[in-house]
Amino acid sequence: MLRTTTCGALTLDNLGENVILCGWVQKSRDLGGMTFIDIRDRYGITQLVFNMDDNPQLCEAARSLGREFVIKAGGLVVERSNKNLKIPTGEVEIKITALEILNASKIPPFLIEDETDGGDDLRMKYRYLDLRRNPVRNNMVLRHRMAQSVRRYLDALDFIEVETPVLIKSTPEGARDFVVPSRMNGGEFYALPQSPQTFKQLLMVSGFDRYFQIVKCFRDEDLRADRQPEFTQIDCEMSFIEQEDILNTFEGLIRTLFKEVKNFDLPEVPRMQYADAMRWYGSDKPDTRFEMRFVELTELTKGKNFPVFDNAELVIGINAKGCAHYTRKQLDELTDFIKRPQIGATGLIYARHNEDGSIKSSVDKFYTEEDLKQWSAALQTEPGDLILIMAGVKDKVRKQLGELRLEMGSRLGLRDKNVFSALWVLDFPLLEWDEESERYHAMHHPFTSPKPEDIALLDTNPGEVRANAYDMVVNGTEIGGGSIRIHDRALQALMFKHLGFSAEEAQKQFGFLMDAFEFGAPPHGGIAFGFDRLCSIFAGLDSIRDVIAFPKNNSGRDVMIDSPSTIDEKQLKELKIKSTL
Amino acid sequence: MLRTTTCGALTLDNLGENVILCGWVQKSRDLGGMTFIDIRDRYGITQLVFNMDDNPQLCEAARSLGREFVIKAGGLVVERSNKNLKIPTGEVEIKITALEILNASKIPPFLIEDETDGGDDLRMKYRYLDLRRNPVRNNMVLRHRMAQSVRRYLDALDFIEVETPVLIKSTPEGARDFVVPSRMNGGEFYALPQSPQTFKQLLMVSGFDRYFQIVKCFRDEDLRADRQPEFTQIDCEMSFIEQEDILNTFEGLIRTLFKEVKNFDLPEVPRMQYADAMRWYGSDKPDTRFEMRFVELTELTKGKNFPVFDNAELVIGINAKGCAHYTRKQLDELTDFIKRPQIGATGLIYARHNEDGSIKSSVDKFYTEEDLKQWSAALQTEPGDLILIMAGVKDKVRKQLGELRLEMGSRLGLRDKNVFSALWVLDFPLLEWDEESERYHAMHHPFTSPKPEDIALLDTNPGEVRANAYDMVVNGTEIGGGSIRIHDRALQALMFKHLGFSAEEAQKQFGFLMDAFEFGAPPHGGIAFGFDRLCSIFAGLDSIRDVIAFPKNNSGRDVMIDSPSTIDEKQLKELKIKSTL
Repeated sequence: MLRTTTCGALTLDNLGENVILCGWVQKSRDLGGMTFIDIRDRYGITQLVFNMDDNPQLCEAARSLGREFVIKAGGLVVERSNKNLKIPTGEVEIKITALEILNASKIPPFLIEDETDGGDDLRMKYRYLDLRRNPVRNNMVLRHRMAQSVRRYLDALDFIEVETPVLIKSTPEGARDFVVPSRMNGGEFYALPQSPQTFKQLLMVSGFDRYFQIVKCFRDEDLRADRQPEFTQIDCEMSFIEQEDILNTFEGLIRTLFKEVKNFDLPEVPRMQYADAMRWYGSDKPDTRFEMRFVELTELTKGKNFPVFDNAELVIGINAKGCAHYTRKQLDELTDFIKRPQIGATGLIYARHNEDGSIKSSVDKFYTEEDLKQWSAALQTEPGDLILIMAGVKDKVRKQLGELRLEMGSRLGLRDKNVFSALWVLDFPLLEWDEESERYHAMHHPFTSPKPEDIALLDTNPGEVRANAYDMVVNGTEIGGGSIRIHDRALQALMFKHLGFSAEEAQKQFGFLMDAFEFGAPPHGGIAFGFDRLCSIFAGLDSIRDVIAFPKNNSGRDVMIDSPSTIDEKQLKELKIKSTL
Repeated sequence: MLRTTTCGALTLDNLGENVILCGWVQKSRDLGGMTFIDIRDRYGITQLVFNMDDNPQLCEAARSLGREFVIKAGGLVVERSNKNLKIPTGEVEIKITALEILNASKIPPFLIEDETDGGDDLRMKYRYLDLRRNPVRNNMVLRHRMAQSVRRYLDALDFIEVETPVLIKSTPEGARDFVVPSRMNGGEFYALPQSPQTFKQLLMVSGFDRYFQIVKCFRDEDLRADRQPEFTQIDCEMSFIEQEDILNTFEGLIRTLFKEVKNFDLPEVPRMQYADAMRWYGSDKPDTRFEMRFVELTELTKGKNFPVFDNAELVIGINAKGCAHYTRKQLDELTDFIKRPQIGATGLIYARHNEDGSIKSSVDKFYTEEDLKQWSAALQTEPGDLILIMAGVKDKVRKQLGELRLEMGSRLGLRDKNVFSALWVLDFPLLEWDEESERYHAMHHPFTSPKPEDIALLDTNPGEVRANAYDMVVNGTEIGGGSIRIHDRALQALMFKHLGFSAEEAQKQFGFLMDAFEFGAPPHGGIAFGFDRLCSIFAGLDSIRDVIAFPKNNSGRDVMIDSPSTIDEKQLKELKIKSTL
């Protein structure tokens, strides 16, 4: 046995014990005839002490140790005179009688401390050293605990984890697939799954009743700041259920996770129609840590010869509580914010509800104080509040004001990462029009069931058809989504038709699923959570990268192992492909 | 709510309750004015009863149901007159008052019963129907329970499950990689991992201390009967340990699994040197459900002018207990068995220890009864036993007799699938000579540590160097293997040199790992279990295919979804590759 205990275990209860510890040299200091070394492992830090008078040779050896050297040290647990009550082991130290260097270390390229001096690129290249830092490793521990908690909860509810294949079939729907050339079937390719969707539905046809899987999925998309080509889902499906059963089951999952992992009592999760979320927050994933709902001012603002409002399809405002004191400069910042290309708005109107009760707007030319009082009433402002108004085409202006609402939430400190607010968004549209391809796309995916009462609209007004689809949102981030599925061959075929598939294409790509529906497919539905995202929210982080042990950069590269890379000509030849570069 | 309970839940305790069940029509029979339907779901079977007198319309509807129709049926729980005590629900039936067809079913292509009439090909094509059968679905439930048990055990010992990447880097060592062309990095490829080996070692460098992962791995090898291109490992690694720690920890895992999943008390796992396993059983994975060890007869048989033995490097025999009565025909079968091309032996010598105490051999010309008595003493035969002897070149004849030993074990009924015998095989050779490439290959993998006392042999006699490597064997199948790893850059570089890598190649392929060793890599080691294989042994099955939900066939095809398949020209173009077919 190399060690008798870890660096996080020893307390006053262990006084007088002879122990052996292994770990990394965190820091070292000499004080008179003594040398103190902090030795670190995953479990904690313990102070080792060497005395020049007792054992000069050992003390010299200790003084020769560099940072991050790996050592094995044995000695006696004694009480510290200078206690550190911030750490569990801070009341004891080990009087070392034996020391062995297990491995030396070069000087690391950045500090292995909670706050490091390493830049992003360096920390990615030496990811194995970055993972040595407590905050980064703790994210992985959190992730592990969350996965264990998910599995425990679902197992207790009779869910079975089933592994579905990674080498599957490429489909034209959805994002771009990663493909894998088949050597044994030359000219043909496997695809990596974007989700196990069809397989979990087949498991329902098989009578598995309750399935889950924590599973890697893959999308070959151009990477934005917070996307990874491989990501992890908590993928779930249930049979013989209605939407209500799914909402209850998975609200339970999320609340259990918050309780077990964060010791946070998440209240019952409120529900909101998609249409209301868009109307009130301009987003299908509103951040409900704060209210600041949109108020429609279209009628109130019409007919006063202000062309911006008169010509607008929609005029909406928010009440920025307590912001009446905003300076010209601050208001200009907000205008600049909404004019950024990502948002693309043209202008912002404001009205201050001053502390003295008066209301002054940037459009006083057109609106009397009486008019402004009506705005104030509609927005329920009080003295000290600031009204922010935008106008334009309905869908567009809602999104734009939604961005401004989030900005104001941040400025007002209403988006605390230690506060959690969850929301179900229900009744998503089934289809969305895609300008580029000039056809409808499935908003969720082609297997989502329309609401029975809306099926008739499929032929007349496809954009109005609502789906039995739902998302769970936490703090303005979609953490999961799902739907009740189609389980009827004819309806599934109709859906593919509306999505622009010919009958032949549909059969070629998804024939196995539609065939399966003919052998007694049960009603079923499910949900998938983005596990990386969920972990990042639990960790209070903005990026999923920090909860992934070995992430890729924005070019899809792993700079640590230098991948992707070229491969042998021989390998290409066996795969019967060649590069066209 | 679609159902109030499942088809496996109702007993006499529920008499008088109104319930709603959902499930599949298993079978249906009419008896006078009554119709009885067995409704099935994952949890069990319940009998529904319809009475023509009470409700002719409902009874007619029930009579119209075909096998595998999915129904929802509501009614009253009553006591059965004709009880079926073989199933938990067999004392009750449901007097149905409401019936709804949730989905019809075509006639399935094979019987959905424990014993089916479907051939392999048909069951693979309609895998979703095969999975509906209890024995197949039960294998998946077993697999789930095993995975849960593994995670619980390791979590309790402070192991952290960390997800390692699936899109990694191709390496020339080991089996052939599956590769994934990178669209964003044209001309370059990711590889799918054959195991997370280097990543788990990096996690040890990061101080994770105890890592595990139940993880998909990939090998593009020509598929034998029982190989799959994608398979699952229980992958584990520990720091600051010696071999003994690993053996104890994972012996505990396997014994816990046997206890929790099979309720079987696996005894302490015995240990055997690789060299002894080869000497005694002719195999590095001996089936220890039975003894029948090899006995060396080389000296005893020399010098009697029997050229086969005189010229042989090794003469070895086994004692087939109670087989003296074997007929000429049975003995010929054994000779045919060992002459099969897969085994390739040339002949078999036998000697019967008859019930009357006499010993008669097939080589009586050369050996006296006195000689034979010496054989008998060496093999500890008793009257009624049969001695089987083979001779030849050492390594070859051991393997051949090993096959015969297994055959005799099977014939003697000593290989019961409900009996479990585990074994640690220790001290594997570090290297093995590869005739084809005329160089040494790593027997385990290039990261395995040689035994310190054998390092000096690396230059003089590489084939004799033993590794700190170990396999766990259950019932003659290797279920897992691992090693203490190299954690020193210089030793790792030396290993690569012995494996025929130039310093440049080694740095290009594994530089990231060797670099990591310079920043304080701790001593570490680990093990990986073949999870599919382990599940198949627990399920008492010969093939891993039966414990995989959606397996591929021997050509690497998924015949259900028809994958792999061709992809669009557009997709190829984006990937900057083209087919050379």
